Amino acid sequence: MTVDPAATTTTLALPATPDFDSWPVAELPVAAEPIEHGVSVRWNDGLETRFHAMWLRENAPEDIHPVTREPALMLDAIPDDLAARAAAVEPGGILRIDWSSGETSRYHPGWLRAHAIEAGSDPLAMPPRTFWGAGLGGCLPRFDGAAILAGDAAELAGWLEALHIFGVGLLEGLPLEPDALERIATTIGPIRPTNFGDVFEVRSKPDADSNAYTSMALPMHTDLATREYKPGLQFLFCMANAAAGGENQIADGFMIAETMRREVPDLFRTASAMKLTYGSRARDSDYRFACPMIRLAPDGTIEEVRVSPWLRAPLVAPLKDVDRAYRALRYFLAVSQRPVMHVTLKLKPGDLLSFDNRRILHGRTGYDPASGERWLRGCYVEREDLHSRLRILARERRARAIAGEPAGI
Amino acid sequence: MTVDPAATTTTLALPATPDFDSWPVAELPVAAEPIEHGVSVRWNDGLETRFHAMWLRENAPEDIHPVTREPALMLDAIPDDLAARAAAVEPGGILRIDWSSGETSRYHPGWLRAHAIEAGSDPLAMPPRTFWGAGLGGCLPRFDGAAILAGDAAELAGWLEALHIFGVGLLEGLPLEPDALERIATTIGPIRPTNFGDVFEVRSKPDADSNAYTSMALPMHTDLATREYKPGLQFLFCMANAAAGGENQIADGFMIAETMRREVPDLFRTASAMKLTYGSRARDSDYRFACPMIRLAPDGTIEEVRVSPWLRAPLVAPLKDVDRAYRALRYFLAVSQRPVMHVTLKLKPGDLLSFDNRRILHGRTGYDPASGERWLRGCYVEREDLHSRLRILARERRARAIAGEPAGI
Repeated sequence: MTVDPAATTTTLALPATPDFDSWPVAELPVAAEPIEHGVSVRWNDGLETRFHAMWLRENAPEDIHPVTREPALMLDAIPDDLAARAAAVEPGGILRIDWSSGETSRYHPGWLRAHAIEAGSDPLAMPPRTFWGAGLGGCLPRFDGAAILAGDAAELAGWLEALHIFGVGLLEGLPLEPDALERIATTIGPIRPTNFGDVFEVRSKPDADSNAYTSMALPMHTDLATREYKPGLQFLFCMANAAAGGENQIADGFMIAETMRREVPDLFRTASAMKLTYGSRARDSDYRFACPMIRLAPDGTIEEVRVSPWLRAPLVAPLKDVDRAYRALRYFLAVSQRPVMHVTLKLKPGDLLSFDNRRILHGRTGYDPASGERWLRGCYVEREDLHSRLRILARERRARAIAGEPAGI
Repeated sequence: MTVDPAATTTTLALPATPDFDSWPVAELPVAAEPIEHGVSVRWNDGLETRFHAMWLRENAPEDIHPVTREPALMLDAIPDDLAARAAAVEPGGILRIDWSSGETSRYHPGWLRAHAIEAGSDPLAMPPRTFWGAGLGGCLPRFDGAAILAGDAAELAGWLEALHIFGVGLLEGLPLEPDALERIATTIGPIRPTNFGDVFEVRSKPDADSNAYTSMALPMHTDLATREYKPGLQFLFCMANAAAGGENQIADGFMIAETMRREVPDLFRTASAMKLTYGSRARDSDYRFACPMIRLAPDGTIEEVRVSPWLRAPLVAPLKDVDRAYRALRYFLAVSQRPVMHVTLKLKPGDLLSFDNRRILHGRTGYDPASGERWLRGCYVEREDLHSRLRILARERRARAIAGEPAGI
């Protein structure tokens, strides 16, 4: 069966979609037919897409829970031998399927096209990241923290995008109230508590349970390397910084890793394949984890770097592996110390430095606690909360575009 | 150089260890010598162990921070060409190294032996798990919740071990105070907040943002499949359960997966290799993740199962892969529904069901909200906090054994 692709959808009641998103209708199905395992759909631009019968049945809008929008039809209620008895395109490009089990389902053409692998759909795609070196120093992404607290959606969106693309963003001008940290962090997601609490106070303490709580210099590192799932986003809010020293340093761990891949492919292989052991050294807790310092996705993309001078536990491995591990570690460290790799900044009271703790290394120079007060408040939020927020921003843009409103932020 | 292995260590001042643990001295070094890359140590039982120079230098007790017990000597302060100039065994089995860089380090023999790969050391080893089926029903590990709240260390230890070994533990007799949940959960670690809050209230709600908050039956699943790091431990505390229906069902996902590996190796391979897509369906958040429903460690051990009828997002894959994925999914589901696989229980007010959400599936039968109240309070804690607690228990046992005290719990 074929249908006139010129038919407009605006006057038609389209089926709901099994989610809360809005799906633009750019192309329309023109023909559909049952095939082995499912249904084939031909579109007005010539593309042919194929959908599995069970997949279509599970995602039929007629069977979603009307409030939660989650499936109400469970897989075991679908017969093993389900097949499309008939497939057709109805006016407006609606795909209609009559099932061997007796029901009928109708699908929104925009939703259907957006979920076709033949159309290049990738539900996990995110905008590409930009790796950086010291050149970023002059143009470290900066945002107006007070505006974000006051609800400025454009400023918030800019910050979220910078956090994803560059892995770092500096908010300035926040009020010097301790809870400004929590208020900013929770615009992205819930604060992740750890054994150091919801919020940790970075000051020199006499009974320090971490080197962070001394006045020592901290070489560049990522936090909480002992956790299988390291915190994804870290926030450091400056309440006072009058001590001599105590500058912050940041570097893009993905840039360092890519440099290593190019310069010393053999050591890069070691760094991305050999598991190092991480362990906390504390009286009351004993967290451990083992994984390579550079974690790759199956396609070779860098997913995470894990660097911690204090939390590396004694590596238990054959001597030659220990030797390789140290050579890889020392090379990574040497690259991270090249001036071209890092940015140094001295936080002012009211500044909040935010960064991706699975990508960005951070450190500080030592300071003299007798010369003035230095007090940062820190906390963590997950990277997937940032991704969720970015997807909701994209969803809102789609909805505005469909409604014919200006794209806005 | 050799030393008399009969020398006792009790009268000697042993070097500190670079951690807070106590290390029994069962064997003693009898000879040590520099070798390429490090030092070789021969023990009184004939074992020969080899340690890397950089590794020894980094873990030298003389250079740990005296308060944090974290390394104060950074890797880049150690010369590239570091070597042991001399190695010797001092009275009491203390390994002494004179470094090419001029320093001298001394190592505790118990600590050294415990970190030798030749002695079988594995810093990540945990006690083996026991997989279970319906047979567990009669002997579901049960503990006295009130005793744990009152600080009974033996009862607490039993519960923690059951949670690791069986992945499940039922606490009974807790006071019917809403915060009993938080008090119990935080004996293990901080509560992990999610977009559903710190604590979620499982009751039928008119504006449900999840099927969990309806009175529908919930087929067996794991929670929060959309998160890269699914919550590791889940707690369900029963405040009221007077409605008709609403029984809880649990099953060991690792047992189901192992059954599948044995019965249908081909589908098991699909389930452990093909990434499924998970996605939330919510108005204000859009969490997504892709991974196989069964995740294996490199050695083939099962690390995690991820099963969620509602949070599986439309799989975007070629038709034949979608077909294989559905066959694997349906087989897993069918195994999970065999009576031999699951345990059904009706929680009483004051019961708290705790389980490993990366291993155990849970579900409930539907209930009639008009027939009585059903109210569970739930929250999450991480599995690594449980592991940390278990390691601290083991450390305390070691310290008692070294002090010659009874092993206790």
